Amino acid sequence: MDFLNCFFNPKSIAIIGASRDSYKAGGQCLISLLQCGYKGTIYPVNPHYEEIFGVKTYPSVAELPGSFEIGLIVVPAQAVKDAVLDCAKAGAKGVVIISSGFKEAETGQELEKEILQLAVETGIKIIGPNTMGVINTAHPLNLTFVPYLKEIPRGSIGLISQSGGVCQLILYALLSENLGASKAVALGNRCNVEFSDILAHYGRDPETNVVLMYIEGIENPRHLLEEAKKITMFKPIVVYKVRESEAVNRAAFSHTGTLTGSFNLYQAAFRDAGIISANSIDELIDTAKSLSFLPVPQGNRVGIVAVQAGLGIIFTSVAEQEGLKLAELTHSTIDALDKCLSSTARYTLHSNPVDITFGVADKKIIMQTIRLLMKDNNVDMVVLLNSHHSEYTQNILEAVEQLIADGEIAKPFVLMQDSPEEALGSKIKNIESKKIPVYRLPDRAARALANLYRYAGIRQKKETVISEQGSQAALDGAKAKSILAGVEQEGRIVLTEPEAKEFLVTAGIPVTPVKIIESSEEAYRTAASLGAPVVLKLVSPLIAHKSDVGGVKLNLAGEKEIKEAYEEIILKGRHLDPRVCVSIQPMASPGIEVIIGSITDSQFGPVIMFGLGGTTVEVYRDVSYRLLPLNALAAREMIQEIKGFSLLQGYRGQAAVNLEPIIDILMKTSTLMTTFTQIKEVDLNPVIVYPNRVLVVDSRILLTGQSK
Amino acid sequence: MDFLNCFFNPKSIAIIGASRDSYKAGGQCLISLLQCGYKGTIYPVNPHYEEIFGVKTYPSVAELPGSFEIGLIVVPAQAVKDAVLDCAKAGAKGVVIISSGFKEAETGQELEKEILQLAVETGIKIIGPNTMGVINTAHPLNLTFVPYLKEIPRGSIGLISQSGGVCQLILYALLSENLGASKAVALGNRCNVEFSDILAHYGRDPETNVVLMYIEGIENPRHLLEEAKKITMFKPIVVYKVRESEAVNRAAFSHTGTLTGSFNLYQAAFRDAGIISANSIDELIDTAKSLSFLPVPQGNRVGIVAVQAGLGIIFTSVAEQEGLKLAELTHSTIDALDKCLSSTARYTLHSNPVDITFGVADKKIIMQTIRLLMKDNNVDMVVLLNSHHSEYTQNILEAVEQLIADGEIAKPFVLMQDSPEEALGSKIKNIESKKIPVYRLPDRAARALANLYRYAGIRQKKETVISEQGSQAALDGAKAKSILAGVEQEGRIVLTEPEAKEFLVTAGIPVTPVKIIESSEEAYRTAASLGAPVVLKLVSPLIAHKSDVGGVKLNLAGEKEIKEAYEEIILKGRHLDPRVCVSIQPMASPGIEVIIGSITDSQFGPVIMFGLGGTTVEVYRDVSYRLLPLNALAAREMIQEIKGFSLLQGYRGQAAVNLEPIIDILMKTSTLMTTFTQIKEVDLNPVIVYPNRVLVVDSRILLTGQSK
Repeated sequence: MDFLNCFFNPKSIAIIGASRDSYKAGGQCLISLLQCGYKGTIYPVNPHYEEIFGVKTYPSVAELPGSFEIGLIVVPAQAVKDAVLDCAKAGAKGVVIISSGFKEAETGQELEKEILQLAVETGIKIIGPNTMGVINTAHPLNLTFVPYLKEIPRGSIGLISQSGGVCQLILYALLSENLGASKAVALGNRCNVEFSDILAHYGRDPETNVVLMYIEGIENPRHLLEEAKKITMFKPIVVYKVRESEAVNRAAFSHTGTLTGSFNLYQAAFRDAGIISANSIDELIDTAKSLSFLPVPQGNRVGIVAVQAGLGIIFTSVAEQEGLKLAELTHSTIDALDKCLSSTARYTLHSNPVDITFGVADKKIIMQTIRLLMKDNNVDMVVLLNSHHSEYTQNILEAVEQLIADGEIAKPFVLMQDSPEEALGSKIKNIESKKIPVYRLPDRAARALANLYRYAGIRQKKETVISEQGSQAALDGAKAKSILAGVEQEGRIVLTEPEAKEFLVTAGIPVTPVKIIESSEEAYRTAASLGAPVVLKLVSPLIAHKSDVGGVKLNLAGEKEIKEAYEEIILKGRHLDPRVCVSIQPMASPGIEVIIGSITDSQFGPVIMFGLGGTTVEVYRDVSYRLLPLNALAAREMIQEIKGFSLLQGYRGQAAVNLEPIIDILMKTSTLMTTFTQIKEVDLNPVIVYPNRVLVVDSRILLTGQSK
Repeated sequence: MDFLNCFFNPKSIAIIGASRDSYKAGGQCLISLLQCGYKGTIYPVNPHYEEIFGVKTYPSVAELPGSFEIGLIVVPAQAVKDAVLDCAKAGAKGVVIISSGFKEAETGQELEKEILQLAVETGIKIIGPNTMGVINTAHPLNLTFVPYLKEIPRGSIGLISQSGGVCQLILYALLSENLGASKAVALGNRCNVEFSDILAHYGRDPETNVVLMYIEGIENPRHLLEEAKKITMFKPIVVYKVRESEAVNRAAFSHTGTLTGSFNLYQAAFRDAGIISANSIDELIDTAKSLSFLPVPQGNRVGIVAVQAGLGIIFTSVAEQEGLKLAELTHSTIDALDKCLSSTARYTLHSNPVDITFGVADKKIIMQTIRLLMKDNNVDMVVLLNSHHSEYTQNILEAVEQLIADGEIAKPFVLMQDSPEEALGSKIKNIESKKIPVYRLPDRAARALANLYRYAGIRQKKETVISEQGSQAALDGAKAKSILAGVEQEGRIVLTEPEAKEFLVTAGIPVTPVKIIESSEEAYRTAASLGAPVVLKLVSPLIAHKSDVGGVKLNLAGEKEIKEAYEEIILKGRHLDPRVCVSIQPMASPGIEVIIGSITDSQFGPVIMFGLGGTTVEVYRDVSYRLLPLNALAAREMIQEIKGFSLLQGYRGQAAVNLEPIIDILMKTSTLMTTFTQIKEVDLNPVIVYPNRVLVVDSRILLTGQSK
């Protein structure tokens, strides 16, 4: 049984801290419940009054005449713990703690821990603290301190907001766009009810067809993402995620660590889970409207009917940037449009967008034009764009109403209409009540339709990928384990390059062979057997950045050059580490340099990054991310996603490289990271990509220092 | 005398094509004039009626009883020319042609040319054809076919729109945001009244304080930009420019030609002229509001008062992305806030944003909090964020009203308030009438304030730069001219590399010396004198892409290698051009590769591009643009503007390069391009940047083939 049912459909509610002061939250909460039409029992609790707003009031929870399902707590922070305990003792299943002064305040951290502990001990569920509460328009239930929310109409949008204020903001925005909500929860401090819990509930909720989320930042995004993955094929999820300021500099052991900001990971994870990310609150609401009103389109081809040509130009421009296409109308549609519009003598362009400026005096022409686009097999969606005109707009709206009534709107259809509220607001409301979205601006209509099409893609992709889970590559686990154990035994957390490469080889990752040498003589002999040119590098667990201290000599050939390089490295390195030694490896032939990195993120766990190497990665940050474990499809996508992908595709007449070896190395890195959770960061940099193989030339591995 | 005065303030108007049918444009135009309160004389012209809507009507222009200033033409396209001639004969100063069917239609191109010719001959000015018309709220005048526009209140925003439909759309959007317009013009086909004309008028117009523009694409953007430059220091200009689809592949002689899309050039030109570019219609309107209501801020530091913490988080996040900063409050402000908010026991963060959740029951606390931020010297702008609450919001609005009344709003101040229209719409309208912008969403408020701050920067920069005009470098003009003449005499348009370099040298641009050699023996001898390694390249006016045919051999040393390379180039090249020869030049030592290019754009004239070289420029398109002629400040900025600028600044411990030699070469290229207008494209690619000098290693120059 879903524990959230008691929050959304409580038979009885106790308000601990109910107040007669309508300016206080304790008063507002009672007013909210009374005004929303809540049908269950309300028990105000306050030792000072016998009734509040006409409702019998009780001095304490213990003295209530019956049991209750949910406690709504609005007492000062210091009294909250006792109130929770009282509720638990009285058999309540859950509490909503409106009160603040907990984790979000300087002084409340400890208090919140105690309350969480109490919840664990008693099994009671807590929404909040520091929250606005819960709304269920179907029950009806307004379990918040905002009485005005009773105005939010019943609808199919389920909202989960981290912030109470933003929850309210989004609900009002839905209201002003003629949208309704099924349920809304402001999570506040998320003591023991999380995004993933509400998401799971909405996934099962027949009242909810579209989920909106507002996220500031969460500790365990993976739970949320796992739940989202189960839902997005059936119900779209749209999120507005606050972009944190990246002023905080991350520790820079690896490139990957430096580049991987949490916003990037959220966006990668959202894409992976099929969550649509909105760039503004308006886009969140506009997308909610298209998703909740319209069926999923079959493709991205839009047929446009423009009363004013300029609106068609703006719509087309934004739509094309966002991945939609102008439909190429069939000849028979063009012919039929010619006939339909010829009486106006003004349909001269014979193409999409269809200009009906001079057809708007005749409702039949408007209807026939839309009908023709609806029937064209090259059209997946239809949009009608009109700026208000006191005479003609009536025709437009009536034509749309008639088409709806006649059941002729067989494909996703959107109206852009900017009529002033007082002129035609009620007519527009009526059209939206029939599930035809109306937008005031052409660019916003284009973005909303583009997101509807994105959702079509999310569904389609899910249908093909759902069977493919993250997969594991073969691994010489014992060997790998012993390498890490050796490092840990020495109390180190940084692997030397030879160790790192040996470790990579256990998963079958191709690396340039590297050998420790003891003398300049051995350097020369080994070079002769490897074949020049060679690379000499300093090896020392104490020196993390070997090139910074002159510890890397590239492209060496000839006895003199090799021997001198050896001596120079030893000479320089000895100052820093008396036990320094030198490694030798063949100089890799040139190819395309890429970087593959992986870190264990504190929020997201193991994640992987792919990008072009060299200065490119740092200047342009042209990298892609995925959460681990990886599957082959995601690995391929993350290669294709970077802007520099064209370089791998046969740039300037070179042959395209085979992606399989890159996918393979990504998968193997994924396996290492998920198998050995003591790895904190891995940089394979550079990895050189050749037409049919890849080669790791240098690598750095850092451990957490907390082995399991 | 400004010829546009007659359009905005006509004493008398003839409507040629006035109609009794209120569904026709001819009827609508008359209704518009009658309803808007126009005080001048109206002469409807229609041979079929003696009066229309109670106004005496005349059979022809010739038969009008008096003269008129403006003719409003709404007859079918075929009759327009005669109507214009009639108006000119009757002494009208200008006509507005509503009628369409001209340049925008397949059949009307010729008709429009004839009308333009007529305008030139008679001196009459034409707005349109295919336009919505002209509005002047102060006159009042609604010279359009949209009667509803009488509702647009008088205000200080001047609008210039290429499209009539979008003009209307923007006017309605202003209306719904409690904004007013001074004047509005829809230009339509811009027969002989252009953006620059209206802009110049608005620049002088005391009624207009902010200019908004909607641009689809124009033939001569330079006129517009020159006018804009004169105005932006005094009046802000905000533009929404449609982004064209870049599907059209440009001819790819040079990199610069391939990369330079018209949208990039518009954006570069807008920035250069101090025009603010909005990314959406909403941003255009929101920015118009902040610019028309608020004074220019002294800096970018925002003090935030948030009733709901979540709104502060969204605002801060977007504001920081857009270039604003959170103000660091002074200690005395923090202390005073502590006192002010301590009674609520809930001001625990002691920092910006200031959380007044628990202060909103007391109007005095709200006022004092805002007052304290206003007085803090570290605060340049103040924003108050509140989501509607039936009880508290009254306090918020009253506090703001009181502060306005008391004259305490001494810095730019914005309110974010999402109250439903029916609840508090009139109160919000009242606050906006006092020039305090109210936004419904925190992210939109942040973008609008960021654009206000951008305008502050535009003013400041203008104040320092206005004296520095585009400057010309010294030039051996006779030599340069004779090089181009030589190429043209041979009927060629592509310069060979030696010719191109010789040409660059006339402006003092440093190039690797290049010499034509006649034999492999001479190649070796020259290499010996230059010092190895050297580069051999094929020279042929017939072969544009020499590396594609194996015509470039880099890094050659040793007699055998050099001689063989020579023979190979000759062998391969001879198939393509029997007169092929070979050039030799020293191999440049490695440095940072950049590209400098310049083209003569069909719309923008000569423009220059700067970017990092190699694959970078093509994959990441990390380039900056300026219109020519260039001044040194703009040259410096275009270097600093690219993302890869960090590579020039001393990347990874290398020394920062001196920018002066790069600025110098940009200025010299500018001089060549503006002096020799027969040059179509120049690529200096690569240019190698060393710590204190630059060197052009290869260059390509293409002429237009139309020498002057």
